[in-house]
Amino acid sequence: MKQEISPMVIRRLPLYLRTVQQLAWSGVTTVSSQELAHRASVNAAQVRKDLAHFGEFGVKGKGYDVPFLLQKLRSILQLDREIRVCIVGAGNLGQALSNYTMYGSSETLRITALFDIDPLRIGQQIQRLSVLPLDQLRETVQSEGVRIGMITVPADQAQSVASLLVQAGIEGIVNFAPTIVRVPAHVRVHHVDFTSELHSLAYYLTCKEGDPV
Amino acid sequence: MKQEISPMVIRRLPLYLRTVQQLAWSGVTTVSSQELAHRASVNAAQVRKDLAHFGEFGVKGKGYDVPFLLQKLRSILQLDREIRVCIVGAGNLGQALSNYTMYGSSETLRITALFDIDPLRIGQQIQRLSVLPLDQLRETVQSEGVRIGMITVPADQAQSVASLLVQAGIEGIVNFAPTIVRVPAHVRVHHVDFTSELHSLAYYLTCKEGDPV
Repeated sequence: MKQEISPMVIRRLPLYLRTVQQLAWSGVTTVSSQELAHRASVNAAQVRKDLAHFGEFGVKGKGYDVPFLLQKLRSILQLDREIRVCIVGAGNLGQALSNYTMYGSSETLRITALFDIDPLRIGQQIQRLSVLPLDQLRETVQSEGVRIGMITVPADQAQSVASLLVQAGIEGIVNFAPTIVRVPAHVRVHHVDFTSELHSLAYYLTCKEGDPV
Repeated sequence: MKQEISPMVIRRLPLYLRTVQQLAWSGVTTVSSQELAHRASVNAAQVRKDLAHFGEFGVKGKGYDVPFLLQKLRSILQLDREIRVCIVGAGNLGQALSNYTMYGSSETLRITALFDIDPLRIGQQIQRLSVLPLDQLRETVQSEGVRIGMITVPADQAQSVASLLVQAGIEGIVNFAPTIVRVPAHVRVHHVDFTSELHSLAYYLTCKEGDPV
């Protein structure tokens, strides 16, 4: 069944999850598809269609029960169980992510290791993690049951890190390096591009006089 | 005319831009919509439909001319002219972005100032930028013609920074803080959520025995 659902739908689920989570935090208990769509900046038909892939969550004329929808979204995304994550690259971005993804008490994605090749960084304490040398990656991934790796190294090192992660038995990669990494078909790669939100924002700036057309 | 095009289309343009840019760097001169779609992980009909909003760029049975499409995408996104950007928050993430977005010789989004409130950070040199105190934001934005602000402060400070950016006359905001910021309708906010790629990746992990259903 999973294969049938478009990746575009799956990519919108975290947005719904975040929106519903915020509603729950605000104490809201019911939300219409219109309101949910408005808050998530998509259209209401899209929200209804996307969620309908996974069952009947809404009540006609009443909307969605917020705690129920929250629980369902977490379950669909498998975020109702602990998933261990490692970060390769303890530079600014790796350190920022070590902090960032630990916000939210309901977060079950757990960063359990942080690796680097720089001797000056190895052994440093970032949050509650000690930076480990890259040659301990395989052993750590296997002993700790790490399933996802985040790549935060410079672009020219991203492919070799991806290969190491694959060899270590990782199931999924989130690549933050501005380059494409190739992995075997059984490993899934998601790419985060910081610049794309910046680039799509540029579209909306007003043209200035003297600008090329 | 701009108002008619769905934000979902606009959000895919940077992905096409990046893909076409990579083809150009590899020396590829023509690409079919199938190949472009494959590389961008969307479907070919979507690519053709999205690009058709902006004109006739492809030749039937031949595909797209890569340098021409690259130039067109840059022009549509207004990335063929310099746009000045500032970053508020010179912590790990702000520093990572100062490096990150400067990659690529064709980048016209130019980070021209980096602000913080922490006296220990003010005056520090990050790349070619000296960290400025937040109370110089308005003056700098106006004198330097900064049009976009990126928010990389903790969540509880994001709204006050957004308000300062709006008062300074910024046109667009990219918010990296894990919270919603509210601004007047004439300012556009794009939100970057690091965790969403991680969350949608979790969906694709195989269920393990003993996992809750």
